[in-house]
Amino acid sequence: MSMHSLIDRIVAELLAQGRAAAAGQSPLTAADTDPALVPVGVSNRHVHLSRPDMDALFGPGSVLTRMKAMKQPGQYAATETVTLRGPKGEIGKVRVLGPLRKETQIEVSVADGFALGIKPPMRMSGKLDGSAGLTVVGPAGSVTKDAGVIVALRHIHMRPEDAVRLGVKNGDSVDVVVSGPRGGVMHNVAIRSDEVSATEMHIDVEEANAFGLTNDALVRVRKV
Amino acid sequence: MSMHSLIDRIVAELLAQGRAAAAGQSPLTAADTDPALVPVGVSNRHVHLSRPDMDALFGPGSVLTRMKAMKQPGQYAATETVTLRGPKGEIGKVRVLGPLRKETQIEVSVADGFALGIKPPMRMSGKLDGSAGLTVVGPAGSVTKDAGVIVALRHIHMRPEDAVRLGVKNGDSVDVVVSGPRGGVMHNVAIRSDEVSATEMHIDVEEANAFGLTNDALVRVRKV
Repeated sequence: MSMHSLIDRIVAELLAQGRAAAAGQSPLTAADTDPALVPVGVSNRHVHLSRPDMDALFGPGSVLTRMKAMKQPGQYAATETVTLRGPKGEIGKVRVLGPLRKETQIEVSVADGFALGIKPPMRMSGKLDGSAGLTVVGPAGSVTKDAGVIVALRHIHMRPEDAVRLGVKNGDSVDVVVSGPRGGVMHNVAIRSDEVSATEMHIDVEEANAFGLTNDALVRVRKV
Repeated sequence: MSMHSLIDRIVAELLAQGRAAAAGQSPLTAADTDPALVPVGVSNRHVHLSRPDMDALFGPGSVLTRMKAMKQPGQYAATETVTLRGPKGEIGKVRVLGPLRKETQIEVSVADGFALGIKPPMRMSGKLDGSAGLTVVGPAGSVTKDAGVIVALRHIHMRPEDAVRLGVKNGDSVDVVVSGPRGGVMHNVAIRSDEVSATEMHIDVEEANAFGLTNDALVRVRKV
């Protein structure tokens, strides 16, 4: 999302809140008018593949086919999908995200873990030591991973300018405040800020549904 | 849960927190030692049936078969299950809870609504005006409901003695504080306190997974 479209969205949200307040639905407080609003990106289960696993699943030298750009610069959803096979069940049509990575990483929800019969730990992306394993099935073959499956911990990708504006830095942990009937506060939300980030909070489908959030909803960062 | 087993559980939780604090994992604060801990009950999708719908789905005069008592006095899971059929998909093996009610009520998650192709509103149990519809399929027939499907709003059933102890009353709205890596605060949690309640917070599977909670985990009530 460009800075302009982000600003447009924030203005629209504030106007909507103002209307709601005028209608007596929700008071517009000083806290609601602060600039710490960030949009939400909801992650469904997905897979990042290494070159060797790409070869095994889709054939030697195969390449991912770009289907749709993600908000994080350079990241995209591929047309390719795989099946996840655990001791208790299978989940098909799991999207592969590009580009390829150094290590294969499989991000599922807690409910997916139950359905598969595995217990993936809650981890930040990239922290795969001692994570859960399963079998990944592609059209050209399958690979059995001893590790690589996690339930991703929520985090906020943040452009450096936005981090400065909000007074936070890469690695900080913040609270995120959500309004609505299932509103509340998420603790322990990591800030990930570097040159290639677009400002966006990543949560999984269960977190989104539990808080009544959908893609591009705005939530408020609160320093702790 | 009896008062004695609730006290046992609270003592065990406090001892565990004390050990965690001693190990430097989590500081034991005054707030952690307060008596406002309540156990969680996680609700999977389920159905409450009216007498006419029971007749249509399981045959005239059919009765529910008690499988397992719920914590709320008199409530039980039945061996009977139904299939939910929406415009986009079906969900099978959905548990019927007994006893029969005046009106059929179908409680699903947000994700279930997507899978079925309906958009049930978030409601407190019993508030069915303008709720979503779908077709319920049983072994003896099916019924198509124009309303009755909701995503249940979280709430705390509370014994009157516990409500007095915590200084809350039926109909109050409280915050609930959850610890752990996916910890946070749930706002707008309704207190439901009457003679037949056992003290227990009801949340659905997505809320449980989003907060890292499982059945009988303890959460802390905070007055607002």
